[in-house]
Amino acid sequence: MDERNIVPQGFRFAGVACGIKPSGLPDLALVVAESPIVAAGVYTQNLVHAASIDWNRAITPTDSLRAIVINSGNANACTGARGVADNAEMASRVAGGLSAHLSERVTREQVLVLSTGVIGQHLPMDRVRQGIDQCLGCLEPSGAGFAAASRAILTTDHGPKTAVMRHESGFSIAAMCKGAGMIGPNMATMLGIITTDFPLAPDVADATLRQAVNRSFNRISVEGHTSTNDAVLLLAPRAKTGPDREQLANFQAELNRLCIDLAQRIPTDGEGAQHLIHIRIQGARDEADAERMARAIALSNLVKTAVAGGDPNWGRIVSAAGYCGAQFSVAETSLRLNGIEVFREGQPTDFDRKQASLSIKQNRLTEILLTVGKGAGSTEHWTSDLTVEYVKLNAEYTT
Amino acid sequence: MDERNIVPQGFRFAGVACGIKPSGLPDLALVVAESPIVAAGVYTQNLVHAASIDWNRAITPTDSLRAIVINSGNANACTGARGVADNAEMASRVAGGLSAHLSERVTREQVLVLSTGVIGQHLPMDRVRQGIDQCLGCLEPSGAGFAAASRAILTTDHGPKTAVMRHESGFSIAAMCKGAGMIGPNMATMLGIITTDFPLAPDVADATLRQAVNRSFNRISVEGHTSTNDAVLLLAPRAKTGPDREQLANFQAELNRLCIDLAQRIPTDGEGAQHLIHIRIQGARDEADAERMARAIALSNLVKTAVAGGDPNWGRIVSAAGYCGAQFSVAETSLRLNGIEVFREGQPTDFDRKQASLSIKQNRLTEILLTVGKGAGSTEHWTSDLTVEYVKLNAEYTT
Repeated sequence: MDERNIVPQGFRFAGVACGIKPSGLPDLALVVAESPIVAAGVYTQNLVHAASIDWNRAITPTDSLRAIVINSGNANACTGARGVADNAEMASRVAGGLSAHLSERVTREQVLVLSTGVIGQHLPMDRVRQGIDQCLGCLEPSGAGFAAASRAILTTDHGPKTAVMRHESGFSIAAMCKGAGMIGPNMATMLGIITTDFPLAPDVADATLRQAVNRSFNRISVEGHTSTNDAVLLLAPRAKTGPDREQLANFQAELNRLCIDLAQRIPTDGEGAQHLIHIRIQGARDEADAERMARAIALSNLVKTAVAGGDPNWGRIVSAAGYCGAQFSVAETSLRLNGIEVFREGQPTDFDRKQASLSIKQNRLTEILLTVGKGAGSTEHWTSDLTVEYVKLNAEYTT
Repeated sequence: MDERNIVPQGFRFAGVACGIKPSGLPDLALVVAESPIVAAGVYTQNLVHAASIDWNRAITPTDSLRAIVINSGNANACTGARGVADNAEMASRVAGGLSAHLSERVTREQVLVLSTGVIGQHLPMDRVRQGIDQCLGCLEPSGAGFAAASRAILTTDHGPKTAVMRHESGFSIAAMCKGAGMIGPNMATMLGIITTDFPLAPDVADATLRQAVNRSFNRISVEGHTSTNDAVLLLAPRAKTGPDREQLANFQAELNRLCIDLAQRIPTDGEGAQHLIHIRIQGARDEADAERMARAIALSNLVKTAVAGGDPNWGRIVSAAGYCGAQFSVAETSLRLNGIEVFREGQPTDFDRKQASLSIKQNRLTEILLTVGKGAGSTEHWTSDLTVEYVKLNAEYTT
């Protein structure tokens, strides 16, 4: 599938290197809508967050967005009043530039801002200004621009994470995200930008994006450290009529699929990760309890180191579920590790430890299936293992 | 101070090796009260817990305890109905043996049981029975027995953790605990046994123990994994009159001090730990918010790896406080790392990164002081750093 032919109509993209990153890699991107469009956003819940998060929250959902400017290499978080001013200036400069290019007035409130990188350092605004101007001069309507932008939003990722699809009924979605699991500088900020030609009203865009994010990016964890800058944005043309229910269901399904596809690439994109761990919970009292258990298991260093070492130390998994606050009966609890039943209705089984260990060591994916009763609550979650390399990479990031 | 002269009167101790541990190290201990005494307990909140936890919860607080039997090397957790029966048999055997030795009837409900070690394997009861009989035959009223018992409760600890004190007003406290931070097999079960000759009523013993544990063992964390077997017990003679208020305050203060002393030794007792991290929170809205922040920082792998690497990456600390759910104003937030102000009222300072890094690298203790406003809420917490050795040691524990 050639991405260039699938990127939805109506958008222009650019990505350049302007010197924010010492490495000289691309670090400024621009996404422009050819006419005012709908935008929805989902943002970090961290009380300590970047200036860009407050800026975007005040704007989305909206039906008159014109652009998103994204810088990588500097999070512009914990930077006080100057950080707030720098953020506003980024939006203003894009608005001013676009007004000139398009010969129509674009205001700074029609521009969203995303930042990712080091915390607590002021943006080098000279370079940012120059980068914005460069981007304005090289906007492209399709695949090449999309690819350039997807590279300019990266930090420690090994490469761009993009996903595109065209539905048989005619709509397309093109999404890019960044976020690398095991090397978590700046808390592994996760950014996502999703463009589509499927027309949506602002409230529908908002609800649709929330569902997709809840089933994908909110179900991955590496170290449980919510970033100061996490954000996922959805851009879509304005809907002129109410949504066709069947078409909207198609769109939601495809959006969910695309987001899950992208999300799964995050936990294992880093030098440190050797296993993707897929955790499924079944039979919980309700979904909230299932989520609690999945998260506790996903965040347990003891579970994550056991997987790294190929150790079928299942007691760590069962007991992680036990301390998370969920209610269940141990006597109704069973656990499968890569399909091997290691705990059945509250009793240890006589499984072959060597075989179980080999199964973990020989597969990049580790499957954990915990059944805790006959309730309707279920969920799934993805995380990575905790390896020696993870610690090495995270021990000396800023110095 | 010679521990043998300080261990409170009225107790006898024993510790032997009976073959539960493949290593042949001591693995069965007995603490006996010469007459019925008061006992209080604080236990793991994990829903998945050992048979011993249910057994003890049903008994404490009590005023007629006679003994505690402790085995190490096997947690007797996740072992179903057989585990429950094995646990009851341990108490019965101690009660029967004591009845014979003391020529007075001791019931199994007068015996508490503690277990620690591997999860999900049945106790080798032949060896346990033999160990109990051995212990009954070598009970000693003072220091030597105390030392033997303190060795027999260990798992991966480097050595016994004991603390004794005698107050000028005459009372003594002798405490032993086990729990090693960074090598967390079986979730680094923490056990504590505190004996005193200070007379207490059961409800007073219970309240006193809870305060001490809340200020000590509940404020340490290594990987946030509440064990299936954690328990701290306090044994004291029965009080014949209500407590003298001043004397009780003295006792509480000494008990708190002793527990904090012991608790601090846990996070750094392991091959993996290179730093003890002391986290203090000031100015929070209330103590609960302060606790949330301290815990989130203590459990952040990104904070723990930064300390391991001597990286003054303070953004990770501030943002960990931000995602824990506590309410505070970033503009009123300041942070000191080993006394160096790195963040002042919402703005990064121009601190010397090299000096800060050296300060972390050259000291075994890392001091984090986070001030988040002018509220009355404060707390402190201890944890360890996250090193390459930690991961290596935890990656292959059961195989």
